[in-house]
Amino acid sequence: MERIYFDNAATTALDGEVLQAMMPYLTEKFGNPSSIYSYGRETRLAVETARKSVAKHLNVSPGEIFFTSGGTESNNTAIITSIRDLGCGHIISSGIEHHAVLHTIEHYCYNGHTSYNFVKLLPNGHIDLKDLEAQLSSQSKKCLVSLMHANNEIGNLLSIKAVSDLCRKYGAIFHSDCVQTVGHYPIDLGRIDIDFISASGHKFHGPKGVGILYVNNRLQIKPLIYGGGQERNMRAGTENIYGIVGFAKALDLAMQNFESESAYIKSLKIYMAEQLQKEIAGVSFNGDYSGSSLYGVLNASFPKTEKSEMLLFNLDINGICVSGGSACSSGASQGSHVIQALDKDDDNVAVRFSFSKYNTKPQIDVVVEKLKEVL
Amino acid sequence: MERIYFDNAATTALDGEVLQAMMPYLTEKFGNPSSIYSYGRETRLAVETARKSVAKHLNVSPGEIFFTSGGTESNNTAIITSIRDLGCGHIISSGIEHHAVLHTIEHYCYNGHTSYNFVKLLPNGHIDLKDLEAQLSSQSKKCLVSLMHANNEIGNLLSIKAVSDLCRKYGAIFHSDCVQTVGHYPIDLGRIDIDFISASGHKFHGPKGVGILYVNNRLQIKPLIYGGGQERNMRAGTENIYGIVGFAKALDLAMQNFESESAYIKSLKIYMAEQLQKEIAGVSFNGDYSGSSLYGVLNASFPKTEKSEMLLFNLDINGICVSGGSACSSGASQGSHVIQALDKDDDNVAVRFSFSKYNTKPQIDVVVEKLKEVL
Repeated sequence: MERIYFDNAATTALDGEVLQAMMPYLTEKFGNPSSIYSYGRETRLAVETARKSVAKHLNVSPGEIFFTSGGTESNNTAIITSIRDLGCGHIISSGIEHHAVLHTIEHYCYNGHTSYNFVKLLPNGHIDLKDLEAQLSSQSKKCLVSLMHANNEIGNLLSIKAVSDLCRKYGAIFHSDCVQTVGHYPIDLGRIDIDFISASGHKFHGPKGVGILYVNNRLQIKPLIYGGGQERNMRAGTENIYGIVGFAKALDLAMQNFESESAYIKSLKIYMAEQLQKEIAGVSFNGDYSGSSLYGVLNASFPKTEKSEMLLFNLDINGICVSGGSACSSGASQGSHVIQALDKDDDNVAVRFSFSKYNTKPQIDVVVEKLKEVL
Repeated sequence: MERIYFDNAATTALDGEVLQAMMPYLTEKFGNPSSIYSYGRETRLAVETARKSVAKHLNVSPGEIFFTSGGTESNNTAIITSIRDLGCGHIISSGIEHHAVLHTIEHYCYNGHTSYNFVKLLPNGHIDLKDLEAQLSSQSKKCLVSLMHANNEIGNLLSIKAVSDLCRKYGAIFHSDCVQTVGHYPIDLGRIDIDFISASGHKFHGPKGVGILYVNNRLQIKPLIYGGGQERNMRAGTENIYGIVGFAKALDLAMQNFESESAYIKSLKIYMAEQLQKEIAGVSFNGDYSGSSLYGVLNASFPKTEKSEMLLFNLDINGICVSGGSACSSGASQGSHVIQALDKDDDNVAVRFSFSKYNTKPQIDVVVEKLKEVL
């Protein structure tokens, strides 16, 4: 049975070219980048070349890119340093952020020293920028605004430029979880004044276990993880060299092929939406799916029936991999906090289909056919 | 020019068999372990199989093993949770710990809520257990004792059983940085009552970017890094599957071949010491090198001359990789904090030679010959 993988927002297959770029560092080039002899210098060079490449794609200086163990660590670092080192006493976020942001905020706010509030959502799931401005303008404490660039479940894209403008106007720190957009869109931070962004390699055909935190040069922060002098004293621990090299190579490939791949993947999303509307009675879509939305994510709702409640299970039996929401919370029984935050009625079963360059229209035909059978 | 790598305490070459075990997860088995469909279940199985294997080698329960991004993160987690979640108000450590412990302690003690003190060292660099007991018995606050199992620069091995007994007697939490010993020695935590140990994959021919934290079942702690429910809510972030699989495989190989490999590597250390004593006037050794000491680490001091000050540089030119101390601090100009803590006079140049199964006696002959030439 061919497996069909439509859960690319959860993780993606490592690109063969990325693995090829990593291989020398998994074999003969194993030196510790902090060592000063030849073995160390060649891996140090690899790390710094990767940093420069990533920085160039984001149009920032290499000194503003810090490699981490992934998007979650990056989000944690941005949030704790904003509170501890940058004097933020209040956080404005949203109920549809990833748990890597939500649970971190809850932790650091539990003692009452720091407060937080969620911004209102529009009916289509977008952030209500008027409410954001109202909250910023009425807040006396220094604010951290943490809002994701694109929602991982419904795909809604935020104008980080608009949020950045508001944050500058009211003197707030702005962090954006860009885990779903770095490697999927060109992001020019030379044109958007932002304080922190987080990204993760495995979301765009790079390796797992590696991410970046962009930290604007003007910020003076201390680490989350202390120890050796790696990452210019900002992130201790021997560097995950293969991961770092893989991250940079994956970003390189993604940006090189952005025009063609994004157009192709978007055509898959549109085709899937059309086929679902044609074939499945009562289907609807969550978020601003045909508007400002990720080209690779389609979140569909099916009327709740005995059959649809077993949908993911039945698809899985047929080798079809899709999810009900974020993988990071898929073990939990409460359902998606994002769909709940959208105030959708409970009579639907939400399924996220997320596509990559490795997917095809014939795969969509198979999945839609199977959905018809099951429902 | 053949390169000779005698810096295996800094990092080690990835074992080819370990890479083979990792390859399926770098290619077709890429699912997110938190996903509930087939792709996710196969990587979840890999992670949990790795956890069971590691736990078995340490003789603990799988639920006590948490995968992290490396030894540094593990050390940070043990220290912050001891202070924040376990009520430790005072830390007893030593001046020869790795920076991953020292700088973390300094950070969390800087505000004055938590205090710390170093235990005295014996002339041979061992921890003075009498002083440790005196400090424990006179301390009214709940203590965290953080002492490394083996020193990464001079190789001294600590009896963690003896320290554990003292900690139990005085109700202290005991964390040991075992980065230099896990994968180098069998460690039976069924026989040693300890609270936390840290280990790192790349120190025993496993991958970089992955480590473990052992957390004794009786402890109730919260994470360092918040987010998804990975690692049973103790370490958020999509799992570094290849790293985790590689860590377990490397530990497996190390323990399978422990008898023969440790004997072989010890013979290299002894041979090197003999050859140095025979060929280099004025050489001496730091730490308890012929006693309770890592079988793979030999720290030698050479009389300080114009030539010896350029020693590492001249060896490097000749393709010989050795270090002056920890790689994590080798960029710093202050020299080794470990050698300084031993109160050695300043008229020597310390060089660490550290061996692996891939080294040979002929390589030692080349290095000793080159040292004679240079000095």
